[in-house]
Amino acid sequence: MRCIKLVIAYDGTSYCGWQRQLDAPTIQGAIEGCLEVMTQETITLNGAGRTDAGVHALGMVASFSSNSSIDCHSFFKGLNSLLPKDIRILRVDDVALDFHARFSCVGKEYSYIFSVDAIILPTRRLYVAHYPGDLDESVAQQCLDLLIGEHDFSSFEAMGSRDLSLTSGRGAVRTISRAVIEELPDEGQYCITIAGDGFLRHMVRNIAGTVIETALVKRSVSEFATVFNEKDRSLAGATAPASGLVLNQVFY
Amino acid sequence: MRCIKLVIAYDGTSYCGWQRQLDAPTIQGAIEGCLEVMTQETITLNGAGRTDAGVHALGMVASFSSNSSIDCHSFFKGLNSLLPKDIRILRVDDVALDFHARFSCVGKEYSYIFSVDAIILPTRRLYVAHYPGDLDESVAQQCLDLLIGEHDFSSFEAMGSRDLSLTSGRGAVRTISRAVIEELPDEGQYCITIAGDGFLRHMVRNIAGTVIETALVKRSVSEFATVFNEKDRSLAGATAPASGLVLNQVFY
Repeated sequence: MRCIKLVIAYDGTSYCGWQRQLDAPTIQGAIEGCLEVMTQETITLNGAGRTDAGVHALGMVASFSSNSSIDCHSFFKGLNSLLPKDIRILRVDDVALDFHARFSCVGKEYSYIFSVDAIILPTRRLYVAHYPGDLDESVAQQCLDLLIGEHDFSSFEAMGSRDLSLTSGRGAVRTISRAVIEELPDEGQYCITIAGDGFLRHMVRNIAGTVIETALVKRSVSEFATVFNEKDRSLAGATAPASGLVLNQVFY
Repeated sequence: MRCIKLVIAYDGTSYCGWQRQLDAPTIQGAIEGCLEVMTQETITLNGAGRTDAGVHALGMVASFSSNSSIDCHSFFKGLNSLLPKDIRILRVDDVALDFHARFSCVGKEYSYIFSVDAIILPTRRLYVAHYPGDLDESVAQQCLDLLIGEHDFSSFEAMGSRDLSLTSGRGAVRTISRAVIEELPDEGQYCITIAGDGFLRHMVRNIAGTVIETALVKRSVSEFATVFNEKDRSLAGATAPASGLVLNQVFY
């Protein structure tokens, strides 16, 4: 028996998210289907996490067990030849048998990309959220600074989403190690990058939506701090659209 | 009567090129349709040139005549609200009645974007041509240097494409003012930018295909010069894919 680790990039536009569904296209379903063609085994692919419909990835990690004798380079070539071009396998490695993409994961990094210009260029429309207006970048960065460290992120958790059977006893407490905003070379486009030991459902999109709203309408950073500290989702801003979100990396 | 000039960006992926066709989606057809809804007139949109199926634009220019009293800002808002998001109107201006997007044009600039990496990232797959290999950038630049100035570009003209009724007596002679290759911030991606007073059908894609082939297999620059000087299309490299080509700007 082997354990094999994949690093995966995808354009989430045409998929109903990562997680396999019976009657809808998903990333997990597409890759499992190709692995089953190659190995002639029934494969369960364990992802480091689930991404929602329309969310993209540059470095999703997933692992699976197999008795196949196919070498890693042949998996790399075979999967990239079988998969549609909006899913690409970047790496294939044999790893220790006790590796599990989700349980072994110690952190993740996401980017949220948005434009404040009046017009989104057509070639960027699937990968950039649209927040036309006059952004105060320093307000956004001050909001992001408040997230660093260990906090209860209930204010930014999708309402009614907590599945207690899946939590590890830490509730909504997560530790954020990095949260920065930078302007991209393409005019009017910004990227918020957030890294941490774990993320609640919709957490990055809820943080992005609230930070961007604050920085656009120039609400005070102390108002943002109040929303954050109240641990009440209904006070925070709207969930930012899926298309702006990218899972950059998973840490082990 | 007014003459109105549009600057247009589009993702050409879903279109059969610029030029209106009876039974296929085109950029010209989509914009004319929206203009006719707005003005209640029959509109003929004159483009600065035609782009082929799958080619993109950041700065196509087109003009039309109208008796409408709709102001430019309302055209801008109305067109962007009626058009699909893969076509965006960047500017609308009233111009002199004798302006014509094609006949008044004195030059154009195109970019050709390609990747030499083994894998094209899914989010870039529609906008980057794939030439996996080991590129010698200095060979590419030396080839491009040979294009500068006034030359007969028959070697890079689509075979059988010359419509003599449309040429202005200059045959395949064109003047290139700029031709450079640069590496993009995204690893393994390059951009060839070419500006000149006019371009033959498929000329940029044929130049790009031949330059990239030369720089990948490390053929000599003198072989490229021979191809160029022979004025024989059959000696040059394959036409590069449409998806890598972008019309950046039109000069007046």
